[in-house]
Amino acid sequence: MNNFNLAEISEQESYTNPMSEKAIGIFDSGLGGLTVLKEIVKLLPHENTVYFGDSGRTPYGSKSGDTVRRYSQQNTRFLLEQGVKMIVIACNTASAQAYNEVKAMAGVPVIEVISPGAQAAIAATSSQRVGVIGTRGTVQSGVYAQALTRVSGRPLRISQQACPLFVGLAEEGWWNNDIVRSVASIYLEPLIKDNVDTLVLGCTHYPLLTQAISSVMGPEVKLINAGRSVAEQVRQQLQRADLLNQQTTEGWHQFFTSDSASHFQQLGSTFLEQRIKAAGHVEIENY
Amino acid sequence: MNNFNLAEISEQESYTNPMSEKAIGIFDSGLGGLTVLKEIVKLLPHENTVYFGDSGRTPYGSKSGDTVRRYSQQNTRFLLEQGVKMIVIACNTASAQAYNEVKAMAGVPVIEVISPGAQAAIAATSSQRVGVIGTRGTVQSGVYAQALTRVSGRPLRISQQACPLFVGLAEEGWWNNDIVRSVASIYLEPLIKDNVDTLVLGCTHYPLLTQAISSVMGPEVKLINAGRSVAEQVRQQLQRADLLNQQTTEGWHQFFTSDSASHFQQLGSTFLEQRIKAAGHVEIENY
Repeated sequence: MNNFNLAEISEQESYTNPMSEKAIGIFDSGLGGLTVLKEIVKLLPHENTVYFGDSGRTPYGSKSGDTVRRYSQQNTRFLLEQGVKMIVIACNTASAQAYNEVKAMAGVPVIEVISPGAQAAIAATSSQRVGVIGTRGTVQSGVYAQALTRVSGRPLRISQQACPLFVGLAEEGWWNNDIVRSVASIYLEPLIKDNVDTLVLGCTHYPLLTQAISSVMGPEVKLINAGRSVAEQVRQQLQRADLLNQQTTEGWHQFFTSDSASHFQQLGSTFLEQRIKAAGHVEIENY
Repeated sequence: MNNFNLAEISEQESYTNPMSEKAIGIFDSGLGGLTVLKEIVKLLPHENTVYFGDSGRTPYGSKSGDTVRRYSQQNTRFLLEQGVKMIVIACNTASAQAYNEVKAMAGVPVIEVISPGAQAAIAATSSQRVGVIGTRGTVQSGVYAQALTRVSGRPLRISQQACPLFVGLAEEGWWNNDIVRSVASIYLEPLIKDNVDTLVLGCTHYPLLTQAISSVMGPEVKLINAGRSVAEQVRQQLQRADLLNQQTTEGWHQFFTSDSASHFQQLGSTFLEQRIKAAGHVEIENY
């Protein structure tokens, strides 16, 4: 009996779910999601990934919910066609507006970036005064306030602020100069007045501006980069679904964009802080 | 003989080209082209217009030439389907990247915004030192330098500068505050050093920032808002083709967008400085 059981266990251990070798699919409105990809690769170096950046239609943050949902569904269809085992919506606006629609059509686990960020913020705050910054779309949707309240279970004081220019500043490469600090001072003033002790960077572009934001908020305010929590969430869900890639070599990484591939390679390498050697162009409106 | 001739002339005068009652079609990457529409309506109040703003895929300035050409062709197909008698490309990036493609498919006169701006600049400069500011796409294409040189026929010193953040600032409603003046000081410094006496606002968003730009450049530098010259060009070409609308009442104006209609109405009214009462949504990727 014992032997039989042992044999069964060892057979289970050597069994590899064929789905596990497939890639993790990640999409974003453009380049910001590369800050999430970076954290996933850091935590899960053996995973393969397929990234789609919708740079041809970026940004999502100023667009209506209907438009963001339509785009997110097309992006999902493209990633599913690549045979991915999981979809990560690495864009706060799309997570806020289109999570249910993507989940309904995916047939594989879907991870969004709001809940992991909210969990990390609740773990970090001691005063229960939490700030959230993001695009206009994310802030207006109110999803962060909902997620924070749901996760916390305690009375919270939540202060939200849309920072539309931060994306343009990040893409201009102005990550920590006088201008970005002046813009940050204007946007962040209400959050400083509200005495938040924790600030959620609710847009995947914002981690690039960490130093400028921190210099305005003060060193005692904890900044939450959801990317790290998202990567941890990806690990947990893959493990639970027996989908962690068992290969011992480094994973491969594919990049696709709806704008020109060379353009994406050039700017994306800055965001990823690593050279993107190849990228493919996708006519995403056909999906 | 004389009588016969007179009768012929009066018959010609009362003849109305049925095409003349059709609308002028105008497209832009989003809202910026409304500054051009405003000038056209001011000069030609009896003309009907159909405006398409590609807000669902805005901005064009940071996107590749291939993408901008594809989008411009779709926008043109939509306007042609509305039966317009002329197409105005009210976007510098699209004018720079897609004029030939639009012209080849239109079958009606096509007006772009580069040549009229260049003509106005050459008429204005006395030192032959001309500055051009625009999106990265417009500046990199070099079309303004070409157009200025072609129009001038004299040796010119042309200084160009991309100002990618100006579009975001204009859409944020920051038209003349400390931040926009600081950003303008950084972007415009090389043009001040080059001692330009005339500056082309080579993006249809920039006229909104006129005061801030002028305060940095100094009051002696002439700012060229191509919108006015474009309207004059529209008038001339319509007249030449016998297409000026003969109605004596005010023209009607229709608005369409690839983003949500209500969103466009709200922001567009600010740009137009007049309320947009209705706007339609277009799934432009189907064109």
